[in-house]
Amino acid sequence: MKKPNLVLQTDFGLSTGFVCSMYGVIKMIDDSLNIYDLNHEIRPFDMRQASFLLADTIPYWAPGTVFVSVVDPGVGTARKSCVAKLKNGSYVVTPDNGTLTAIIEQIEEIRQIDETVNRLPGSEKSGTFHGRDVFAYCGARLAAGIIDYKGVGPVYPVGECVRFAISEGKVSEGLAEGRIAGCLKHFGGISSNISVEQFEKTGIKLGDMTHILIKKGEDALFDQDVLYHRSFGYVKIGEPILYNGSTTPYLSLSLNQRSFAEKYLPHIFDIGEEFADYRIMIWKK
Amino acid sequence: MKKPNLVLQTDFGLSTGFVCSMYGVIKMIDDSLNIYDLNHEIRPFDMRQASFLLADTIPYWAPGTVFVSVVDPGVGTARKSCVAKLKNGSYVVTPDNGTLTAIIEQIEEIRQIDETVNRLPGSEKSGTFHGRDVFAYCGARLAAGIIDYKGVGPVYPVGECVRFAISEGKVSEGLAEGRIAGCLKHFGGISSNISVEQFEKTGIKLGDMTHILIKKGEDALFDQDVLYHRSFGYVKIGEPILYNGSTTPYLSLSLNQRSFAEKYLPHIFDIGEEFADYRIMIWKK
Amino acid sequence: MKKPNLVLQTDFGLSTGFVCSMYGVIKMIDDSLNIYDLNHEIRPFDMRQASFLLADTIPYWAPGTVFVSVVDPGVGTARKSCVAKLKNGSYVVTPDNGTLTAIIEQIEEIRQIDETVNRLPGSEKSGTFHGRDVFAYCGARLAAGIIDYKGVGPVYPVGECVRFAISEGKVSEGLAEGRIAGCLKHFGGISSNISVEQFEKTGIKLGDMTHILIKKGEDALFDQDVLYHRSFGYVKIGEPILYNGSTTPYLSLSLNQRSFAEKYLPHIFDIGEEFADYRIMIWKK
Repeated sequence: MKKPNLVLQTDFGLSTGFVCSMYGVIKMIDDSLNIYDLNHEIRPFDMRQASFLLADTIPYWAPGTVFVSVVDPGVGTARKSCVAKLKNGSYVVTPDNGTLTAIIEQIEEIRQIDETVNRLPGSEKSGTFHGRDVFAYCGARLAAGIIDYKGVGPVYPVGECVRFAISEGKVSEGLAEGRIAGCLKHFGGISSNISVEQFEKTGIKLGDMTHILIKKGEDALFDQDVLYHRSFGYVKIGEPILYNGSTTPYLSLSLNQRSFAEKYLPHIFDIGEEFADYRIMIWKK
Repeated sequence: MKKPNLVLQTDFGLSTGFVCSMYGVIKMIDDSLNIYDLNHEIRPFDMRQASFLLADTIPYWAPGTVFVSVVDPGVGTARKSCVAKLKNGSYVVTPDNGTLTAIIEQIEEIRQIDETVNRLPGSEKSGTFHGRDVFAYCGARLAAGIIDYKGVGPVYPVGECVRFAISEGKVSEGLAEGRIAGCLKHFGGISSNISVEQFEKTGIKLGDMTHILIKKGEDALFDQDVLYHRSFGYVKIGEPILYNGSTTPYLSLSLNQRSFAEKYLPHIFDIGEEFADYRIMIWKK
Repeated sequence: MKKPNLVLQTDFGLSTGFVCSMYGVIKMIDDSLNIYDLNHEIRPFDMRQASFLLADTIPYWAPGTVFVSVVDPGVGTARKSCVAKLKNGSYVVTPDNGTLTAIIEQIEEIRQIDETVNRLPGSEKSGTFHGRDVFAYCGARLAAGIIDYKGVGPVYPVGECVRFAISEGKVSEGLAEGRIAGCLKHFGGISSNISVEQFEKTGIKLGDMTHILIKKGEDALFDQDVLYHRSFGYVKIGEPILYNGSTTPYLSLSLNQRSFAEKYLPHIFDIGEEFADYRIMIWKK
């Protein structure tokens, strides 16, 4: 039987050798395993981003895939290491530190990794690289079939998982209110916590003109008419567009071929900035 | 029979999960397909760079390779999505937006992607991620043999392809004139549109001293003697060298172990800067 | 028999097409070869970093692996290209320019690449891309079994290898002295040249409080009490921690979830900065 693929994400960056050591450990366990990368440029220590990226990406990989996600500021301390089995048959190997928040509803069962068994032999002296010594090692053994899911370690209640707060936007006739949920530095678009399915209940339709207000505290950072449509090219270069996000079924806001965040929310990239402080209101013109 | 390799390039960057979703879609279609990366750090929306990278890289991959190139500012609008079959048997799956310009002479036939067939089922609501929903999906089906080339969709004339302007440098006895064609931010070298084959007609030979003048409008940005030789190490660290480009048979200009662009052309990296505004003249000392 | 894996590292960056051309050349030689990446974001021309990354990573890959390392400021000049066979059976294909320094003790035999045989046919006109034309080409032929190790070219003495200076820290009762050996821009931690095995001879134990002084010339850049423990989470966020490095058995110094280098050694990232100028002293409180 074909072994499942491994998909890795970390906050290790691509200018280190850390990811390569994880690969090497996996290939030494079973050279026939295939390994792929989700994103190794997660903002250091940002479990929120790790969590949402898992939620966005898991649907596009075959059931049974073994995801290994290592954003782990508590490495070497008492935080649990775990493997979550999802309802679609895929697995997520990760520190239990909030990373599972955005996929918590998808979890069928969760097990704590028994590090007396599922830890790279000889790695005991290193206390700062569980990505290699525990998560890659355990994930590879699971994907290779050396252990089955029970072999990970003892079950514990999903309700004990560490979670960060997430909120869903609200809608009424002609009005939607929510918060900024994420911001993609690369293109500069932002995503909200207002789902497209909910948004449709406002009565606003593709092609309608809306008005959007973004506030941080009492400061209005953006206050303009914005077209709601399928894609960027329905407005001129540099103009704003409201649309269904690419990877998640939530409303997103961008400029056509320019960076919305750089123009209107330049501080949103600062380390520690909470997206949730930014409220967004959308109403029909 | 061995299935062809897929080679992906995008302007999605490596700090997002977009490329990983493309991989997942491809592997779900056929888990035996092998996928490789060309460059996902193309300047956002820069079809020129995408086009020249394809031209530079295609010769180093086996005939039959399926390249998927997604730099797609017009995603979700009326621009065509297409698959070009090259004369060497390789394929390029891309929006028809200029990306094919630098390889136009290599195209044997071009077909528009029939999105009623070759689009990820269930993706209709998303209008901004054809990289995943159309290009990766269609490329994978072609590489997997689920469709043959005719199964892509209807043929249209190569002459209808969207193209940007490219020009070739000119040479005479002892003199070459052209434009800057590209600039590599990483090392800081620049490439010209003067081919080495043409340049040899000037009579200038490896080891000769030349004089090079670079002008933008009336401003002389660089005006120095430069050695023409095989590689950087023939001049001292920090000194300029004229040489045959690594990936293309065009003349390139660098400093040994330093950034030419940073020192002499610092504005060339600004978004929207047209390399073609920079003229280059080279004559024999 | 399973063919060995190829693992590539370069200073080419991920915003070029260079690595992809190396992949293509390897796959054309033998499409069944598997290729992985160590780090392509090595600081341009920094053989030291290339060398230490090889030392850190080789132990985590199976014996027999073929590493191809291309940091090659002298490309196209008289510097040797070579393949080192390591005592564990792995190989390193590289320019002989210092890259082998940190693994010199592991070398069993070294051979110069015979470029009349082991060079991509038709590449003679290009003098600046031996990563593709010589190192990837030769490494692939070796991994594919087209040549055996003798087929690389003639043996030469390991003692003739180009090396940079490395030093080991010194310890006595209650005191360790050494230098900064590396600095990871991504997380901002620094590593020293004091091995953990040596450090244990000071009598300082995990959980002990130490005092650390870092000087550049006469300037004290850091002068604080620091806990020596297993991992970051044993101190508060933003506080310093001394620990066993993740990838090397040397002492490392970081802040918990913050960048030590950015706070205390901001100039350490400047190009050309020698880590060795920074002395570090650690004593028991």
